[in-house]
Amino acid sequence: MSGWIAIAGLGPGNDDLVTPQVAAAIAQATDIVGYIPYVARIAPREGLALHATDNRVELDRAAHALQMAAEGRRVVVVSSGDPGVFAMASALFEALEAGPKAWRAIEINVLPGITAMLAASARVGAPLGHDFCAINLSDNLKPWEVIEKRLKLAAEADFAMAFYNPRSKSRPEGFAHVLDVLRAACGPDRPIIFARAVSTPEEDIRVVSLADATPDMADMRTLVIVGSSLTRFIDTPRGQIVYTPRWSR
Amino acid sequence: MSGWIAIAGLGPGNDDLVTPQVAAAIAQATDIVGYIPYVARIAPREGLALHATDNRVELDRAAHALQMAAEGRRVVVVSSGDPGVFAMASALFEALEAGPKAWRAIEINVLPGITAMLAASARVGAPLGHDFCAINLSDNLKPWEVIEKRLKLAAEADFAMAFYNPRSKSRPEGFAHVLDVLRAACGPDRPIIFARAVSTPEEDIRVVSLADATPDMADMRTLVIVGSSLTRFIDTPRGQIVYTPRWSR
Repeated sequence: MSGWIAIAGLGPGNDDLVTPQVAAAIAQATDIVGYIPYVARIAPREGLALHATDNRVELDRAAHALQMAAEGRRVVVVSSGDPGVFAMASALFEALEAGPKAWRAIEINVLPGITAMLAASARVGAPLGHDFCAINLSDNLKPWEVIEKRLKLAAEADFAMAFYNPRSKSRPEGFAHVLDVLRAACGPDRPIIFARAVSTPEEDIRVVSLADATPDMADMRTLVIVGSSLTRFIDTPRGQIVYTPRWSR
Repeated sequence: MSGWIAIAGLGPGNDDLVTPQVAAAIAQATDIVGYIPYVARIAPREGLALHATDNRVELDRAAHALQMAAEGRRVVVVSSGDPGVFAMASALFEALEAGPKAWRAIEINVLPGITAMLAASARVGAPLGHDFCAINLSDNLKPWEVIEKRLKLAAEADFAMAFYNPRSKSRPEGFAHVLDVLRAACGPDRPIIFARAVSTPEEDIRVVSLADATPDMADMRTLVIVGSSLTRFIDTPRGQIVYTPRWSR
């Protein structure tokens, strides 16, 4: 029996956002590999080994998954959201490229999931309803200058923007700089959405202006969206809807 | 009994990419509203009215859905992919904002789906594995100058890029211009992925260089991805993997 790897997206948190394709892969797996809180979402069962590892060891985790698959095991590498968006798919392919040539014969499939920006956007309306960009604000793997340049160009392009990994304990000051750059580029009235732990019991969503945004509104479980210049509000008895229309000037 | 609207994403085509949340909404609906090929994906059943309409009547379709929900019906507005990405969510909110104030009391939920760029990315590897943007190339609702400006700024930011609605019969020359702009901004060697009808029996995926890309490689069922300057290839016995690593220089 030959092994395989499925790099699967578990969606933002709620099981009703896990695709049947991902559920089927998990049902066939012998091994689950991933970051501790994501592996914790998998129901234990006889014959399924759960390999939960800490954050920031993505390449080790990927190599472990490849080694097990090379030995004939059926391995699901789990990410939250979509595995191809700031998650395990790129890490696994980095490990594959750097690893033994024999690994390249392994069957590897990427199974998409509901990424955080789509879940967050849906909860407030449709702020990503027109052209937009997605930027990882973590500066672990890229210089701050690259982040700043991309923020300014994205504002000039009038993209709506989705930000992943806005803030961590190891770099608390970075997100304050991001807010400064955005206020200068987009003006104080631009809406910013802080969507924490969407679709989980801890879900918390705040919509404010850039003028009122403070760094403590985000943590590593927060997805941040900034509207384009055309993003609009609709006040309803059920709350405020935020959306970006389909047209541009 | 009070009506509601769910604006639901059906994913790229295969039913195993439809979330349980969307399936549950469809199971509770009295009415399905959408573009003909998307409504055709819904299994008919007793008590479920299917309202299929042609393309380019999004606002009429949205107003019809709102009117039915105001009358107490349970309406699912279907889009392919994700409803918040170049799909029906923004159209519905445009109609809501322009319509009778009474409509604002309607319960409206957006149910996310697997949008085409995530499905396409997964099929070739992880080309959107680092910062990226998503641009609708249809110039029905925005001037060509805006599209060109965004392409140039996205290239300068070194985003990977996902393009929706690249080409239609009514504007066959637009996508040729897009390729010219991209070749000038990114160079001839940059990889471009043409992913048609992903996850359906008609799926067809091509990866070429910008130098070899021609407009006829895309139609309105094609999602196009252009890599960043760091996008890489891995040759394997199972085919070529395309991915963008997690780091930037």
